[in-house]
Amino acid sequence: MAEALTAEAILVATEEVLRRYGPAKATVVDVAKALGVSHGSVYRHFATKAALREAVTRRWLDAIHREMEPAFGQGLPASEVLREWLQRLFDKKRRSHTEDLELFTTYKTLVGESSGVVEDHVEHLVGLIARIIQAGVDTHEFVTDDVPRTAQAVWDATQAFHHPAHAQEWGNPHIQDAFDAVVSLVAAGLRYNRIPSATGDA
Amino acid sequence: MAEALTAEAILVATEEVLRRYGPAKATVVDVAKALGVSHGSVYRHFATKAALREAVTRRWLDAIHREMEPAFGQGLPASEVLREWLQRLFDKKRRSHTEDLELFTTYKTLVGESSGVVEDHVEHLVGLIARIIQAGVDTHEFVTDDVPRTAQAVWDATQAFHHPAHAQEWGNPHIQDAFDAVVSLVAAGLRYNRIPSATGDA
Repeated sequence: MAEALTAEAILVATEEVLRRYGPAKATVVDVAKALGVSHGSVYRHFATKAALREAVTRRWLDAIHREMEPAFGQGLPASEVLREWLQRLFDKKRRSHTEDLELFTTYKTLVGESSGVVEDHVEHLVGLIARIIQAGVDTHEFVTDDVPRTAQAVWDATQAFHHPAHAQEWGNPHIQDAFDAVVSLVAAGLRYNRIPSATGDA
Repeated sequence: MAEALTAEAILVATEEVLRRYGPAKATVVDVAKALGVSHGSVYRHFATKAALREAVTRRWLDAIHREMEPAFGQGLPASEVLREWLQRLFDKKRRSHTEDLELFTTYKTLVGESSGVVEDHVEHLVGLIARIIQAGVDTHEFVTDDVPRTAQAVWDATQAFHHPAHAQEWGNPHIQDAFDAVVSLVAAGLRYNRIPSATGDA
């Protein structure tokens, strides 16, 4: 098995070890044992335990990024693509905090260990919102002269539905209604921007 | 002095004692001492230490509510009243977390002791936003068929700029720009709602 050892196999095993022992107790020796190799073989792929843990974190976030690809459909308005995307993100976040809280806490610990990882992750998600807004601009559904800044504003205006600091509010029975009202307001804001340039009615 | 002792005088003295000793150490005996009365005199106005602390908290929040009255001006658009109001709230919150952090922490402790106080406070502030939105509806600047729900949406969409869980982001040099972008988006959303009813352009 040692000669077939790939970085990917190590990352899969590390995830499994982290799930089983938690981030505080999981060691490189545990990972090597799970793979039936020496810990030296693991270190040939990842120079330090920190590097291994950061690689696992990035792999986890990459999977989220793939799951969060916007669902553009034939003729679907950008406002609907945005609404579905924000709902998907909110549902994912809510689920992490109920069903998978232990796993979520594990990854939260890992994310906290690597500086820049959260920033890159948020930047990626804001970039996906920017793609949806750009699609709306292309079809004249939305107008804005600054897509990245507007995407950041949409992200910031929906913090209550994705920032972990608000997790304790996500069990509130009225939360879906609050989400709907904010998304409607935001989508209306994205549409309105074209009105001033079309009619001078600013 | 004992015969002139009013609830208001006790509350002023309690605030001073809380500032001086902090919420963990301040006692009713300290308050009575500061006023030159017996602690029995204090208990005649406030049956328990908890009741006294809750009264101080409500007095503090009432002062905030007075400071947060919307600044309606002759011919000022509702969107400008809303922007100024949200900016005033944001500036107040930011200041609490820098200049007056100790006092803020004291009040945060007190607020945490009385259930329902935070909810009442937020409800009051959302009610002030509703008054601004209603003013915009009255002048046909905004249209919404549900003012309270829209006011709640404006509150929720601006959480990043008033919810204490976001305080650590308020020192970020780009925070004012982020605030401006969210408020513009929200204000555009409030204006857009009139378009469908006016032109059928939904």
